[in-house]
Amino acid sequence: MKKKSLLLLSVVILTVISCNETEKSKTVTINEKTVGEPLPSWNDGETKKAIIAYVKKATDSTSADFIPVNDRIATFDNDGTLWAEQPLYFQFFFMIDRIKALTSQHPEWKTQEPFKSVLEGDMKKALGSGEKGIGAMMAATLSGMTAHEFDNLVKDWANTAKHPQTQKKFTEMIYQPMLELMDYLRDNEFKTFIVSGGDIDFMRPWTEKVYNIPPQQVIGSSLKVKYEVRADTPMIIRMPEMNFIDDKAGKPVGIYQHIGKRPVFAAGNSDGDYEMLQWTTTGTGPRLGIIIHHTDSTREWAYDRNSHIGQLAKGIDDAPKYGWILVDMKNDWKKVFPE
Amino acid sequence: MKKKSLLLLSVVILTVISCNETEKSKTVTINEKTVGEPLPSWNDGETKKAIIAYVKKATDSTSADFIPVNDRIATFDNDGTLWAEQPLYFQFFFMIDRIKALTSQHPEWKTQEPFKSVLEGDMKKALGSGEKGIGAMMAATLSGMTAHEFDNLVKDWANTAKHPQTQKKFTEMIYQPMLELMDYLRDNEFKTFIVSGGDIDFMRPWTEKVYNIPPQQVIGSSLKVKYEVRADTPMIIRMPEMNFIDDKAGKPVGIYQHIGKRPVFAAGNSDGDYEMLQWTTTGTGPRLGIIIHHTDSTREWAYDRNSHIGQLAKGIDDAPKYGWILVDMKNDWKKVFPE
Repeated sequence: MKKKSLLLLSVVILTVISCNETEKSKTVTINEKTVGEPLPSWNDGETKKAIIAYVKKATDSTSADFIPVNDRIATFDNDGTLWAEQPLYFQFFFMIDRIKALTSQHPEWKTQEPFKSVLEGDMKKALGSGEKGIGAMMAATLSGMTAHEFDNLVKDWANTAKHPQTQKKFTEMIYQPMLELMDYLRDNEFKTFIVSGGDIDFMRPWTEKVYNIPPQQVIGSSLKVKYEVRADTPMIIRMPEMNFIDDKAGKPVGIYQHIGKRPVFAAGNSDGDYEMLQWTTTGTGPRLGIIIHHTDSTREWAYDRNSHIGQLAKGIDDAPKYGWILVDMKNDWKKVFPE
Repeated sequence: MKKKSLLLLSVVILTVISCNETEKSKTVTINEKTVGEPLPSWNDGETKKAIIAYVKKATDSTSADFIPVNDRIATFDNDGTLWAEQPLYFQFFFMIDRIKALTSQHPEWKTQEPFKSVLEGDMKKALGSGEKGIGAMMAATLSGMTAHEFDNLVKDWANTAKHPQTQKKFTEMIYQPMLELMDYLRDNEFKTFIVSGGDIDFMRPWTEKVYNIPPQQVIGSSLKVKYEVRADTPMIIRMPEMNFIDDKAGKPVGIYQHIGKRPVFAAGNSDGDYEMLQWTTTGTGPRLGIIIHHTDSTREWAYDRNSHIGQLAKGIDDAPKYGWILVDMKNDWKKVFPE
């Protein structure tokens, strides 16, 4: 929460989280959904068994492990936990598309890094520009407009942009088993929140539709904004300055600021989620922390300790100590993406 | 959102907002509550009529003014809007009580302002110490402990402390008509949020019980916090540094950061709520802004333009321009406090 320049914002873009809920649909579907078998896209096995056992004891009012409804807070990382994150965090693809769209207004970008490399398609070189270069990309694409304008840009992008390798929409590269897990938790009156290192306002325009998580249950990194009245019209202006970095030790802080309660369930996939998992699972009462381990190079990607994105090392090393469950994507999931 | 020292925190303490909701109870009570007459503690008249007319058209799916459930966001200031705020913001009474309780650990306070004046019961002089003095009081009473410790301190205080004039618990000096208004809105599937200049963590420990508003629907000013692991125990530490001032133009910013949607209904009582009311009521579609006007010197207090707390001048002047309804506490409310 220290004041950080946009340079540091770029640190964020190298990690992320997410979570969700719509009360209406939860209420309406409780009976229907709990009648069917939960988690249909999860293979039967220890992982699925452990998740169901946790939910059963947490919601059994005769159990010593019963959790009152108001305390059933579940937090989910986004990148790599609810949707894919390779070969780049999807927010980067948005930024690249924005830079291309804005080129005509910025002739100087043809010779100015990191924009020059982005326009030439050399992302490795563009990202090699480090924090300063990434900060410049973020300032150019995430700020300098009203909140309303940014919201529309993100919505349009989410509705149309496609992943360069799969040709799916990015919002279709979400994990079907995780959608089912969030549904299952909501059916059991957990509140699901996203807690992501990504820009909070890059997620909010589409999380309600895609994950059934309303904007007020999305926590993320953020830019500073200000309220202004211009020509009698009030507006929120997005500033090129970092407000909060919701990553690593920032995740428990973001949770405290937004939710004001300690979660009882958390899901992540990288060491950026380590502190959120630690904060969640060391509280009193029944807790569950799960880590999505990307082990499936055929249906998705396989990476952990040495990945430049979504690095997972400490999480694997300390999973036994904290009782975190490593979800083996290849063996625990019947399918990865919807359809 | 600029970096502010604790000195500036003291500015906050000179204004405040609040709002609420528990999905569970909302769902359960929809049918019961909408069957009865809404707003029983409101006198029949133009104000009550206007509120009911607004809710009816906003929830009528055949109306051009229909608002989808997900967009029914209602924000409430706290001090002076949901509970009383005279002769001092109630958070000040908490701070005074904490200073008294901590005196034995701080012998230097006997000669050091503003603590000396607080201990001698001369609040006028203590507050006369200005931002620096108030900042010192806030640092001494709101920070330097874990989130868990602070939560317990506030809960204990809310359960026991009494207002010096009424001898009621502070949490009993809430406005019965506003409880009914929030219930009525929730019954009609509005989400109710508190948006207060007061410290967010001073409210969260009791808003669920008192207002039926869970912590995640409370927005307020905040201190910086950090996550730390001490002797293998993770904790959130409250720092003596301002994070965010949720007052005036900060209120729309706080709403954007926490909710991510523009409210359609807002209630305030002072010029600290002006921008929240303006932001809320200038959006498209049906909007309602109400201002609680403290006109009842018998049952509560009467004050507006010249009050040192809850000053209301711009709000009265611009109410006609924006269509804000001034709630006349003396004539619009059958009762003020519960019981």
